Amino acid sequence: MTTRTTFLGLGAMGSELAAAALDAGRPSVVWNRTPDRAAALGERGAIVARTVDRAITGDGPIILCLLDHQSVHAVIDPVATSLAGRIMINLTTTTPGQARELAAWATEHGVTYLNGAIMAVPEMIGRPGAVIFYSGAESAFEENRKLLDLWGQSDYFGTDPGMASLRDMAMLVGMYTMFAGFLHGAAMVGVEGVSATEFARRQTPFLAAMTGQLAGLAAAVDAEDYAGAGQQSLEFTEAALASLVTASLEAGVQVDVLRPVHDIVRRQIAAGHGRQGTARIFEELRNAR
Amino acid sequence: MTTRTTFLGLGAMGSELAAAALDAGRPSVVWNRTPDRAAALGERGAIVARTVDRAITGDGPIILCLLDHQSVHAVIDPVATSLAGRIMINLTTTTPGQARELAAWATEHGVTYLNGAIMAVPEMIGRPGAVIFYSGAESAFEENRKLLDLWGQSDYFGTDPGMASLRDMAMLVGMYTMFAGFLHGAAMVGVEGVSATEFARRQTPFLAAMTGQLAGLAAAVDAEDYAGAGQQSLEFTEAALASLVTASLEAGVQVDVLRPVHDIVRRQIAAGHGRQGTARIFEELRNAR
Ligand SMILES: NC(=O)c1ccc[n+]([C@@H]2O[C@H](COP(=O)([O-])OP(=O)(O)OC[C@H]3O[C@@H](n4cnc5c(N)ncnc54)[C@H](OP(=O)(O)O)[C@@H]3O)[C@@H](O)[C@H]2O)c1
Ligand SMILES: NC(=O)c1ccc[n+]([C@@H]2O[C@H](COP(=O)([O-])OP(=O)(O)OC[C@H]3O[C@@H](n4cnc5c(N)ncnc54)[C@H](OP(=O)(O)O)[C@@H]3O)[C@@H](O)[C@H]2O)c1
Repeated sequence: MTTRTTFLGLGAMGSELAAAALDAGRPSVVWNRTPDRAAALGERGAIVARTVDRAITGDGPIILCLLDHQSVHAVIDPVATSLAGRIMINLTTTTPGQARELAAWATEHGVTYLNGAIMAVPEMIGRPGAVIFYSGAESAFEENRKLLDLWGQSDYFGTDPGMASLRDMAMLVGMYTMFAGFLHGAAMVGVEGVSATEFARRQTPFLAAMTGQLAGLAAAVDAEDYAGAGQQSLEFTEAALASLVTASLEAGVQVDVLRPVHDIVRRQIAAGHGRQGTARIFEELRNAR
Repeated sequence: MTTRTTFLGLGAMGSELAAAALDAGRPSVVWNRTPDRAAALGERGAIVARTVDRAITGDGPIILCLLDHQSVHAVIDPVATSLAGRIMINLTTTTPGQARELAAWATEHGVTYLNGAIMAVPEMIGRPGAVIFYSGAESAFEENRKLLDLWGQSDYFGTDPGMASLRDMAMLVGMYTMFAGFLHGAAMVGVEGVSATEFARRQTPFLAAMTGQLAGLAAAVDAEDYAGAGQQSLEFTEAALASLVTASLEAGVQVDVLRPVHDIVRRQIAAGHGRQGTARIFEELRNAR
């Protein structure tokens, strides 16, 4: 018997995962709640299953790529008893807490659980630059390495099923705040008739270059030494941020995204740390109030 | 008579500007409020002036690099009458409004005014990657182009003296929000014992790659078309941000920086734009409430 890979969920991302497996010559069975979305994969050689039950016959790995945590339960709960002894690799975006809950559910039902977090858009799957983080059952990662590597670079972060997700989400915070900051900047120059595209042409290489500063910020954080040489002081940063807030307001640009950064820096200065480095922002972020 | 370049303000940045001029063989006269800071430049061949009045004799360009707008007035107001007919190039960081105020002051006193905004740290002056934005008197820019190009790439943004500063500040918003987002992410993984340095090793190339998305966001903004193909919807982004906020709070990380981004997206969805692209955040930022 040929071991088949099961794909549950054929949205934009799930379809790409299944397509990469098919292109590599892997026997695959696919299922999607809305059946139309399976047709193209059927033409590419996938067995199209009408029900989840049929999709999970056999003994191959079961790949989940659904909307969210809730939809994963909607799909697996009804077939729980049939899943015992199987490997489930869940690539649906979940919080670390949700990943841990699913792992506990899996243990309870005799399922080996690996959680994945995809650091790519669908078009990147199988192409350079795609990275997927995994954590949970190491055996599932090792045994299916060839499959996983079809999609992108596979990075394993240990047995805590929540780690891949935590790592993923930690990376996305910087991306979304950067995007919001970019749009804020575009709004500032937009007031003077500069197009966002013209602005992006300069902002893109500048921000790319500025990512080179992150290692320095990290070194200060790790050393818990914000007084070392070469660090831009909180006082310096405060003056800069105050100017940015003023200039934004003068231009009629909303400062919801920028002001909290300024406020954190001001609180750090009020607490007596003005001469210390800007990386000290970390100390406040890690302490939820 | 050899035209000398005058440097007023020899802090970390002003010293580098003067040093680059001296290294290129330019006769220079330097002044600093606290005289010690002039000594090293004196040894490199600068004439060290005891007073601002003496520093500005001659007919060369006057370069200002002081702490802030207020310190510029503290230096130039007492010598206002001696400045008539001269070119003043101010590289002190100011808001666009402050730059315009200084330009008006200059006009009133018969001074030709060019405003500069330095997109570099002092160590980068004269090295690849340093960029300085200028706006204001075009003649001052053109006539002193050789001097300016000693420091870095010189970009001129038109006669509005506020534009260089506006452009500069618009670029810095993305940098500071990215830094804050990075430190937030570092705090999230830090809870699980991952060092900020380990995190930075992954975050740095990821964010650098993600700057590649800015052009796409910009295109949507310029077209005022947030419904075009290939855009990540506000609904998708809302779900992602909700997960990031939840995961942060679960990890005990403060969400002051992240929550406003989520809130903007939620307000856009509440206004009925959920199916439209995430670049629509711009529409809210540009309308200060
Ligand atoms: N797209 C990306 O750029 C990207 C990047 C990284 C990670 N991801 C993650 O990948 C996962 C899938 O994303 P996607 O882009 O493929 O989304 P999508 O195109 O919206 O697909 C969602 C999938 O979930 C299914 N689904 C939703 N609710 C369901 C339910 N209650 N029961 C059964 N099936 C249900 C949908 O089935 P129907 O067809 O029947 O609606 C569809 O197959 C998400 O967790 C996403 O966060 C996506
Ligand atoms: N450093 C950077 O990375 C960087 C990057 C881009 C732009 N800039 C801008 O460059 C400018 C200078 O920065 P910097 O790094 O050289 O700062 P700095 O090392 O702190 O030097 C500040 C300079 O301003 C002078 N000053 C302050 N208040 C004064 C007053 N009331 N009257 C006369 N002189 C006064 C100081 O004189 P004393 O020596 O007597 O105190 C000193 O020469 C700032 O506007 C800064 O924003 C700096």
